[in-house]
Amino acid sequence: MTIIYQYKVATTSLGGFVKLLAAWRGSVYKLMFKEMMIFGGAYTLISITYRLGLSLEQKLIFEKIVQHCDTYTSLIPVSFVLGFYVSFVVKRWWEQFMNVPWPDRTLFIMNTYLHSDDDRARIMRRTVARYMLLSLIIITRSVSVAVMKRFPSTDHIIQAGFATKEEIEIFENTKCKYNKFWVPLMWANNILVQARRERKIENDFGLRMIIEQLATFRDKCSLCFVYDWITIPLVYTQVATLAVYIFFATCLLGRQYLDPNKGYPGYDLDLYIPLFTMLQFFFYMGWLKVAEQLINPFGEDDDDYEINWLLDRHTEVAFSLVDQCYGKYPGLVQDKFWN
Amino acid sequence: MTIIYQYKVATTSLGGFVKLLAAWRGSVYKLMFKEMMIFGGAYTLISITYRLGLSLEQKLIFEKIVQHCDTYTSLIPVSFVLGFYVSFVVKRWWEQFMNVPWPDRTLFIMNTYLHSDDDRARIMRRTVARYMLLSLIIITRSVSVAVMKRFPSTDHIIQAGFATKEEIEIFENTKCKYNKFWVPLMWANNILVQARRERKIENDFGLRMIIEQLATFRDKCSLCFVYDWITIPLVYTQVATLAVYIFFATCLLGRQYLDPNKGYPGYDLDLYIPLFTMLQFFFYMGWLKVAEQLINPFGEDDDDYEINWLLDRHTEVAFSLVDQCYGKYPGLVQDKFWN
Amino acid sequence: MTIIYQYKVATTSLGGFVKLLAAWRGSVYKLMFKEMMIFGGAYTLISITYRLGLSLEQKLIFEKIVQHCDTYTSLIPVSFVLGFYVSFVVKRWWEQFMNVPWPDRTLFIMNTYLHSDDDRARIMRRTVARYMLLSLIIITRSVSVAVMKRFPSTDHIIQAGFATKEEIEIFENTKCKYNKFWVPLMWANNILVQARRERKIENDFGLRMIIEQLATFRDKCSLCFVYDWITIPLVYTQVATLAVYIFFATCLLGRQYLDPNKGYPGYDLDLYIPLFTMLQFFFYMGWLKVAEQLINPFGEDDDDYEINWLLDRHTEVAFSLVDQCYGKYPGLVQDKFWN
Amino acid sequence: MTIIYQYKVATTSLGGFVKLLAAWRGSVYKLMFKEMMIFGGAYTLISITYRLGLSLEQKLIFEKIVQHCDTYTSLIPVSFVLGFYVSFVVKRWWEQFMNVPWPDRTLFIMNTYLHSDDDRARIMRRTVARYMLLSLIIITRSVSVAVMKRFPSTDHIIQAGFATKEEIEIFENTKCKYNKFWVPLMWANNILVQARRERKIENDFGLRMIIEQLATFRDKCSLCFVYDWITIPLVYTQVATLAVYIFFATCLLGRQYLDPNKGYPGYDLDLYIPLFTMLQFFFYMGWLKVAEQLINPFGEDDDDYEINWLLDRHTEVAFSLVDQCYGKYPGLVQDKFWN
Amino acid sequence: MTIIYQYKVATTSLGGFVKLLAAWRGSVYKLMFKEMMIFGGAYTLISITYRLGLSLEQKLIFEKIVQHCDTYTSLIPVSFVLGFYVSFVVKRWWEQFMNVPWPDRTLFIMNTYLHSDDDRARIMRRTVARYMLLSLIIITRSVSVAVMKRFPSTDHIIQAGFATKEEIEIFENTKCKYNKFWVPLMWANNILVQARRERKIENDFGLRMIIEQLATFRDKCSLCFVYDWITIPLVYTQVATLAVYIFFATCLLGRQYLDPNKGYPGYDLDLYIPLFTMLQFFFYMGWLKVAEQLINPFGEDDDDYEINWLLDRHTEVAFSLVDQCYGKYPGLVQDKFWN
Repeated sequence: MTIIYQYKVATTSLGGFVKLLAAWRGSVYKLMFKEMMIFGGAYTLISITYRLGLSLEQKLIFEKIVQHCDTYTSLIPVSFVLGFYVSFVVKRWWEQFMNVPWPDRTLFIMNTYLHSDDDRARIMRRTVARYMLLSLIIITRSVSVAVMKRFPSTDHIIQAGFATKEEIEIFENTKCKYNKFWVPLMWANNILVQARRERKIENDFGLRMIIEQLATFRDKCSLCFVYDWITIPLVYTQVATLAVYIFFATCLLGRQYLDPNKGYPGYDLDLYIPLFTMLQFFFYMGWLKVAEQLINPFGEDDDDYEINWLLDRHTEVAFSLVDQCYGKYPGLVQDKFWN
Repeated sequence: MTIIYQYKVATTSLGGFVKLLAAWRGSVYKLMFKEMMIFGGAYTLISITYRLGLSLEQKLIFEKIVQHCDTYTSLIPVSFVLGFYVSFVVKRWWEQFMNVPWPDRTLFIMNTYLHSDDDRARIMRRTVARYMLLSLIIITRSVSVAVMKRFPSTDHIIQAGFATKEEIEIFENTKCKYNKFWVPLMWANNILVQARRERKIENDFGLRMIIEQLATFRDKCSLCFVYDWITIPLVYTQVATLAVYIFFATCLLGRQYLDPNKGYPGYDLDLYIPLFTMLQFFFYMGWLKVAEQLINPFGEDDDDYEINWLLDRHTEVAFSLVDQCYGKYPGLVQDKFWN
Repeated sequence: MTIIYQYKVATTSLGGFVKLLAAWRGSVYKLMFKEMMIFGGAYTLISITYRLGLSLEQKLIFEKIVQHCDTYTSLIPVSFVLGFYVSFVVKRWWEQFMNVPWPDRTLFIMNTYLHSDDDRARIMRRTVARYMLLSLIIITRSVSVAVMKRFPSTDHIIQAGFATKEEIEIFENTKCKYNKFWVPLMWANNILVQARRERKIENDFGLRMIIEQLATFRDKCSLCFVYDWITIPLVYTQVATLAVYIFFATCLLGRQYLDPNKGYPGYDLDLYIPLFTMLQFFFYMGWLKVAEQLINPFGEDDDDYEINWLLDRHTEVAFSLVDQCYGKYPGLVQDKFWN
Repeated sequence: MTIIYQYKVATTSLGGFVKLLAAWRGSVYKLMFKEMMIFGGAYTLISITYRLGLSLEQKLIFEKIVQHCDTYTSLIPVSFVLGFYVSFVVKRWWEQFMNVPWPDRTLFIMNTYLHSDDDRARIMRRTVARYMLLSLIIITRSVSVAVMKRFPSTDHIIQAGFATKEEIEIFENTKCKYNKFWVPLMWANNILVQARRERKIENDFGLRMIIEQLATFRDKCSLCFVYDWITIPLVYTQVATLAVYIFFATCLLGRQYLDPNKGYPGYDLDLYIPLFTMLQFFFYMGWLKVAEQLINPFGEDDDDYEINWLLDRHTEVAFSLVDQCYGKYPGLVQDKFWN
Repeated sequence: MTIIYQYKVATTSLGGFVKLLAAWRGSVYKLMFKEMMIFGGAYTLISITYRLGLSLEQKLIFEKIVQHCDTYTSLIPVSFVLGFYVSFVVKRWWEQFMNVPWPDRTLFIMNTYLHSDDDRARIMRRTVARYMLLSLIIITRSVSVAVMKRFPSTDHIIQAGFATKEEIEIFENTKCKYNKFWVPLMWANNILVQARRERKIENDFGLRMIIEQLATFRDKCSLCFVYDWITIPLVYTQVATLAVYIFFATCLLGRQYLDPNKGYPGYDLDLYIPLFTMLQFFFYMGWLKVAEQLINPFGEDDDDYEINWLLDRHTEVAFSLVDQCYGKYPGLVQDKFWN
């Protein structure tokens, strides 16, 4: 579920974002808890080995290696890679959401033009709405794990009422080995053409406007597929990930506290716990986790889009719009501002 | 209220932005005043403890910790995280404002096509305008604290004249558990269809053009909701906030002035007041405050959008446009440049 | 006036941008001349005081302060703040210009559809053009100092021929306490409706296309107002400005040359004039001046948009387009490439 | 083939992106394997020469050069150049993909308007679809090596069934020495005009809507050509490449391990293998490889667009859409949510 | 001419971009050859003077200055300024190209609607195409040096066949002291209106669609002018240029090799040739050259847009499209995939 937190920060106040640091669901802590444990464990292991397990000579070599590593950690351009990479991922994540299709506009306009109060017209209106939802389910099933879990088979779609058995059969008989999400939209298109023939859509303007919106809905479904097909190039993700992981692998050695008695410059304090390295771990790993969470927004992370919620919303709004709200409006009266 | 300051800097002059530094309303000082006090207090407390409260041996350990902290403050990539994060927040803030719906275009075009001077046509024009305002109020109530305070209940909306009691009843009887901001727009749609039937809208072009604009208005209302629903991922905000807060927590220790007599390198001056750290506090914390203020632009910060002002403006302009300006124009005369 | 310099750099050549460094109008030198003087003066004053006015002991303290300041100047992230801030300002500046409305497209399309050679049709065409210019003047008056200076009162608008006395009266009698730039466009709209009734616009396509463009023109006028109303958040500007000013305040002390005989490391040269600090002043302050100049592009800076020039251009082109060019074309002949 | 990996990271989990590091196809390792070998070989060669092949005096000079180089490697702003350059390349890569034309929308709308079940109408629908595919093939042949390999001559296009011999002849007889990808689209246009004349397209709305989409398809084909014609300026690519290559050329010397016995500061450890330099090689070279792979997305890299797959998909979907799905829809029944 | 190099890097391979480093035309070497010579010369001159021309005492002062300069070169934020500045220039360069008008879409649609095979209709179609080209020439003449060289006077335009003498006369008699590129488009507009009157354009849809495209073509011509009129603010360019030039002026002194015998730290090697400074020169100056080359893409640089080539292409395609391809299509046959 998307984490909604903006009400907590609606008005800038003392502390401001501090409140947000205490959240757990969808938080950076929850996301990195385990990584942190592993990193801490490895660090401790090395630290104990150094303190207890090494001979004097081995210690000397170890100390040289630590100092060597420490020098080089700063050579890895983690900030730069992450800054540009995460920036790109976040931008893409938002565009992807903006392209999730909403049926509202099409149905709003269909209400303007597909008239008549008889059952046939009502079925037409409802069926067009239903086919739009069906297409949306078919396409989101192919990109979202959560929707796939909800509708693991076409039977589940039938049971949920989004398609009849007959429709699924026709759908499956359509010969095309590529994603067929557009088939129900083609049916909706043909129904609208029929409605025009039966004069339920009274003029060509009407047909044109509905079809235009329907085609745009189809395009957006198609974009869902495209965003899923063409991801951020693997190399880019690998480079950013490698930067972070190798940085911390280096830190495992380079940030060890050495015996202050040896008098190495900068090593006159033994804190046992590498507080600042842990904090750096938080920033860099947390930054990378931002990318990790957003790169596939259709997963089941705390902060992923709730496609299932959206499907429920679309279903209820769609039928309410085309059915309950069709053709009705309150009595026309003079308003309070009149003259 | 939005802070308007560009007239002060319309023309580049000596000092330029310096004038802006003296502002208080919406200023960085006002926003960070309290944080600064807390930071300053904590710093002073530690400083006094060090100077007066510690034994010689404790001082030695304290001094080592201070130097250790000082080394590590530079490891936290505050600038990078903030640069990219704030850049993203600011971009989103502007897009969000650009998507706040304005009724002007729809009404401008309705005036072109919905004719007749009789009362019924006038009521129709006014009602469409009113329903647009009503939808805007319903959607902004759900995202803006300020609008919610102005219209805490539907009764307040009725009292303000944006809806009649009957309308609110119909609205509340519409079965749909999701945000129903679109219901009044559906009414407006149906009224326009009726106006076409009564030949008040003389041709299909007219109906089409008004409906198209109305649907776009609906889309923008919907976007208001979407921007509110899908916020910047919590993790990203947490990472940026953590970077800044931990940086300054580290500074509390790392920037302490040590006894110059001890001869630590770089500590030969005791200024008591950490001027430069305070200044850094200003930049980084101020930078974060930019994000804090813009992440929810519908709050009640000094610099948030004034949705209430916008509602007043829309109300007055809408009725003036559809009523007072309908069908009128000055006499056609030859202009001054004629031949 | 906008500084046009691209012809000087049309072709990359030896020196390239070097030529541009010699420009004065709109140049970084002109913009920062005074700031530079003040900074130089203050620096000299401090320098002289140190050399001549301080006792030996005071000098010692002063020298410590200078070294302390020198260390900390590098802690202020001026580059980062400025990089992101200026980048945002420049992007906004260009978008703002792209949204200044041009009447050309509307008039081009009106010529296609509003026919008849009689005086009434000609007056109609000219009046629509004139009302567009009038709206543009009203809106730009409210955002641009230069236009306000040109038309300090409505009388000046009448005198310049953009409105008649009668029109200004009707305008002022329109009850609406918000910006009424849209009123003349509403008149233009009503005139076009009238033209359609009189069959001067021969079909509904024509009316629709002109109205659509007129509405877009109105939207862009509205955007002029919005860009002026919602500026870059004051906090952001303050943070960037503070970064630069405090950086240089610190430099006033931190970049002083100390007596080389004292043997402080890095202070073995006394150049009297802090050349590199002056150069840094140029970059950072110049960078900030970019923002200062672009944040309100409707001012009277050397490099601001010339709205007045644009108004003159629009006036001449508009009347030439709707009048002189209406319905005329050279004789149709076979062109040179024929067969 | 595009590397699809987002399912592996759909849900953030322990390790997260770590899984991706193990991939080989399309991976950074595969891309840089050879460069790494060469770099490693050269480094080893120099290292051996220094250890075994140089006299004592030569060693001394060599050691000075190494230290000198080491100081200067940090002067090369690789991160900055790469950050901005790769960011630009990635943005362009995505835009380029977004502009690859898809025939779906045009055909979806053609189905709404081009009616009749007879063979002639069916041929018309199929031929318009086929001509769209033909244009797509012609344009992609000119930009993509993979498509050129699939259709090395027009005979191959004929054989694959996308054109008849007669059509290719007419195509080749069209006098125009520039890319003629638009010729088949012009034919499609003319066929649609003919269909309108024969009343197969029943009204002008229909013709208009199909032509509009067809023209947009043409524009996108044209953009394919433009993106290919105007590439990222060579200078920019050269600057980024030079930065990386010279950085590593410098590292070949500057990162050599010197004899610890000489007591040079920072050289008290001899690891033989320059682990950190190898890691840096991975980041920077990998970062550059991102650009290298995306600058021409129509090549045959592991991660390039699969234009051939897209052509197959378009072919199958196009014919299925215009033929199998034309005019059909399941029986209209009351849905499960009815009342 | 645009440098096309993407085929060389279509597939990532060993070396990858290395091939590009060997190019000369449009290369960074060619662009900076002379600057490099001057820089090298000045450096050598100073170096020789130091080694041979100074007394011992002068040498001492010189050495101090060199060390002083060396410290300060790092204070100049060249990377930051250049990164953001070049990023902005490159983005603008691409947008500018995307806004160069292409006549194809207008003519494609005109072919759909402007019918009849007689000579008058043919002349009409050709003349509209010709007027579009004429407008394009007039506007590009005013922004591109190359086009101005090709058509230094209107006589050259007549001779090239894009206008008749009569047309140029009418054009020049149009009273308007601003750029009149829109006049031929107004003629084209009027011809189309005439064509509609003569029923050569059969319905209002046709006229509307062509005019819409023509108006968009006009807008893009207008944008050519706007991009040329409002350039990147001079101050921004100056700041970036100053950063680079002053950086290298500082390097002339700061990067001199000092006598190793003096034992200055970091000066124990005398290489005579400042290899790394030369390389830095390449990056920074090359980076600036990217901006220099793209800031006016209508010049005559190796990598500027070839407007003349584009004009030739448009001419040939335009006439081929409206004439040779008008109304023709191959015989309608069943395709290979037919059942």
